[in-house]
Amino acid sequence: MTRLALTLAAALLGTTALAEPTATGDLGLVIERATGSVLLVDQSDRAALARIGGLGDLSHASLVYSPDQRFAYVFGRDGGLTKVDIVTREIAGRVVQAGNAIGGAISDDGELVAVSNYEPGGVRVFDADTLELVADIPTGGKTIGLVDAPGRRFVFTVWDSGESWIADFSGPGMRTTRIPGMGKNPYDALITANGRTYITGLFGQDGLTALDLWAETPEPIRVLPGYGRGQQEMPVYKMPHLEGWAHTGAEFVLPAVGHHQVLWVDAATLTETGRTETYGQPVFAMARPDGRHVWVNFAHPLNDTIQVIDSVSKQVIHQFKPGPAVLHMEFTPRGHEVWISVRDAGKVMVYDTQTFEKLREIEADSPSGIFFTARAHRTGL
Amino acid sequence: MTRLALTLAAALLGTTALAEPTATGDLGLVIERATGSVLLVDQSDRAALARIGGLGDLSHASLVYSPDQRFAYVFGRDGGLTKVDIVTREIAGRVVQAGNAIGGAISDDGELVAVSNYEPGGVRVFDADTLELVADIPTGGKTIGLVDAPGRRFVFTVWDSGESWIADFSGPGMRTTRIPGMGKNPYDALITANGRTYITGLFGQDGLTALDLWAETPEPIRVLPGYGRGQQEMPVYKMPHLEGWAHTGAEFVLPAVGHHQVLWVDAATLTETGRTETYGQPVFAMARPDGRHVWVNFAHPLNDTIQVIDSVSKQVIHQFKPGPAVLHMEFTPRGHEVWISVRDAGKVMVYDTQTFEKLREIEADSPSGIFFTARAHRTGL
Repeated sequence: MTRLALTLAAALLGTTALAEPTATGDLGLVIERATGSVLLVDQSDRAALARIGGLGDLSHASLVYSPDQRFAYVFGRDGGLTKVDIVTREIAGRVVQAGNAIGGAISDDGELVAVSNYEPGGVRVFDADTLELVADIPTGGKTIGLVDAPGRRFVFTVWDSGESWIADFSGPGMRTTRIPGMGKNPYDALITANGRTYITGLFGQDGLTALDLWAETPEPIRVLPGYGRGQQEMPVYKMPHLEGWAHTGAEFVLPAVGHHQVLWVDAATLTETGRTETYGQPVFAMARPDGRHVWVNFAHPLNDTIQVIDSVSKQVIHQFKPGPAVLHMEFTPRGHEVWISVRDAGKVMVYDTQTFEKLREIEADSPSGIFFTARAHRTGL
Repeated sequence: MTRLALTLAAALLGTTALAEPTATGDLGLVIERATGSVLLVDQSDRAALARIGGLGDLSHASLVYSPDQRFAYVFGRDGGLTKVDIVTREIAGRVVQAGNAIGGAISDDGELVAVSNYEPGGVRVFDADTLELVADIPTGGKTIGLVDAPGRRFVFTVWDSGESWIADFSGPGMRTTRIPGMGKNPYDALITANGRTYITGLFGQDGLTALDLWAETPEPIRVLPGYGRGQQEMPVYKMPHLEGWAHTGAEFVLPAVGHHQVLWVDAATLTETGRTETYGQPVFAMARPDGRHVWVNFAHPLNDTIQVIDSVSKQVIHQFKPGPAVLHMEFTPRGHEVWISVRDAGKVMVYDTQTFEKLREIEADSPSGIFFTARAHRTGL
């Protein structure tokens, strides 16, 4: 009877999308950058379910999920903010909120979506339900490293002024706190999974800068001041993504800028504990959820390769070539498999993380970022 | 059109359950111990959606979720293993697999469900899809502290023999490893969120025992050997739940056995770093997901009260009385709210974790454990 009714509903809908009740815990979206579409995928079935188009320019796009894992908020490079319903598999809303945007975040209660803009700069905050503008926060510059923090807060940093801002929406109005002196030209930032430590990478000087968001008055903390591009280092092909910082438990793994290395940093003291030589300039260094292995991909022209590093020995234990232009990796939430975007092969590849065996290839159109719905339940993703 | 078809489907089903497409990311189940039922709840709406009955004896029950967050596997005290479909809101399968059971776990790939038994003892492993028996593992005693570990493994411990077992299902057959010498009468255990460290509490001697599951050959590691019930301590009203151990980042918080205290333990060295005096004998000491606060409830007769401890100062910063028989707490995945079972008030109460304001009361029949679907994506829950 249940199946009959659902089949009838599906027939009326002209789709098989609702032929079975939907649970959203093991779904995900893959950004198809060339076509402005996202591919809905199912982790358990290792399959693509549907393609949803009309999202605009998705080069360098990212997305966040609503707490119920029904809606994705996709941040396009063109300033488009698109709300995608992954249950009905259609666009539920779209605003073009700026000329050039660079990522976003969703508040811990799921009510506010914030977008970080290059042009005209600043941050805009929207009602997650209606996409109506809630707050416009001009910052006087390109705004990067936007993350959510516990307590309906967003943290972000201004490239031009080297200033970090905390926008707090926990009360009736918005309160902002500005922290100057983060360093010259911060280009990206991350927040640790517990929401305590915010770390910016610097383009204009060596080292990184951290903030302890648990402090009464957060002050810039210099991290690895002796590390950086250096004076005579090789050119930087691609700035590594800080969001990809791996946390293995006691240590972070940092993709080095302009070096063929990852750096190991003590999570408590933020001091360097080691370096591992790698195949190329690392882009993402991502810990398997248990922290035992770190998977690293590399910048062009060495972007056909992945290395896996053991976090105890700090040695490379496995290396392989999924194919041309490995852009992103996403682990299943408990880490038994990893999905890898191989852009120029037009495929997403699924690997067993224990045996390194390839389990499946899924067709995708210039795939880049892969985002599983489990991100809805994590801070800073 | 979509809504029309769905409304029609709902009419055919004789229910409003499917009047809207279902997303399962913000749902949960509350154990109603007196009536053998579970209450389906919605975190975002702070509401009960449905009651599902017929689950047998649910005193001391717990449950785990499938990776897609559609199915719950409920472990009853009477040995019943019930598979509940939270999308269709009905029982999808049930086996009575032993005479007396004490919890279970689901493998990292979601394919195997294991149940830990007092009577006849041992562990039984079932196909998560069909509930058919996959493996029967007699252990010669009451089996406690069953958890999942990465790589299709389960870890559990035998009360009678003081032996921990690792059952590894990553290959074609099952391989078991036995580790003797864990201590006298282990009564419960936990695994850390990264799946590396397994820790058993001991009833028959002071201290606890840990295993490093990353070691080639895990050996028992003595933890806090000078701590325990002691010789002349007050009676133990209720053994604390080890699964409730709070991990605040650098430290664990341990509910002391038979003392009005929680103990702080360095997560890296497993040595004691402090104690906080509490209102009663703690049962659960649970960290808010950001680790900044630890919420503690207490054993009878002081079980009407909750204390909140700041993890930096280790001081109690808030205390309140939700009502009679506070049995369990569950945080929303990013920690902005907490749900609390107040058994003898017949209510689940929802609080804002920043302001401590009560946001909602939800009627429930003798509520005990609260389990949100986000647990599907965590190890050891």
